[in-house]
Amino acid sequence: MRYWEDFQVGDEAGHGTHTITADEIVAFAREYDPQPFHGDPEAAAAGPFGGLIASGWQTAAIYMGLYVRALMLDTAGMGSPGVEELRWLAPVRPGDVLTARSRVLDAWPSESDPGRGTIVGENELVNQRGEVVMRFRARMHIARRPAPNG
Amino acid sequence: MRYWEDFQVGDEAGHGTHTITADEIVAFAREYDPQPFHGDPEAAAAGPFGGLIASGWQTAAIYMGLYVRALMLDTAGMGSPGVEELRWLAPVRPGDVLTARSRVLDAWPSESDPGRGTIVGENELVNQRGEVVMRFRARMHIARRPAPNG
Repeated sequence: MRYWEDFQVGDEAGHGTHTITADEIVAFAREYDPQPFHGDPEAAAAGPFGGLIASGWQTAAIYMGLYVRALMLDTAGMGSPGVEELRWLAPVRPGDVLTARSRVLDAWPSESDPGRGTIVGENELVNQRGEVVMRFRARMHIARRPAPNG
Repeated sequence: MRYWEDFQVGDEAGHGTHTITADEIVAFAREYDPQPFHGDPEAAAAGPFGGLIASGWQTAAIYMGLYVRALMLDTAGMGSPGVEELRWLAPVRPGDVLTARSRVLDAWPSESDPGRGTIVGENELVNQRGEVVMRFRARMHIARRPAPNG
């Protein structure tokens, strides 16, 4: 298990790749973001992006899936209080191959809770052409390593 | 159809309510954010939140679904470049009744594209106890009203 002490400022990591399909884009859109350019292929073709693009919230969720499966399932995570400067920098289209990477920008122990620390990560999703399609900074709460027993 | 000119700084609106279920929380988590406190009811009960809570990305997506269905399907939306200060302020648990509301903080026409303007909205999701569970500011690109013919 990975604890707050295991994250160092400057650490960089890749978290794997996801190829997004039109079916995934439409399914997410119909439940969560039914703007025509996300959920309706015909309307999208005539719309401002010239075709279907993924909801930005789905793009963020796909990043999270890669990050969690690569890193957080073995980390004593305690949730996140929030995100700064979430940027959708390029459209995400069916067939795009999205690679997740992150870097630790800052880390500090909690002043109120000796069992917890915070890290700040810069998180990016990059497509098959090397374009950063999304970037955000997030704070994560992580449990500190338990003291060894007596 | 609503255009950029139809949004005024100070406009406030409610966008309806969604009651979140444990099944929805787990389904989203298994696809997009499989941290144990989102996707595994038994592990969640023993975890840092004492039970299942929704992924913050799902909370944002639920807000978006309400906002889009109430407002954006009749608005000439052109996507969003990003979000500032996304805050997850209180856990979202099964059975919570979530109400969406927003306020227009700023609005300006594009300098590069005469067919488009930007608005900045403050967006909140409030639970059945009146607690703001999530807040973020987002920029939205919206088409300007077409000039009348001849």
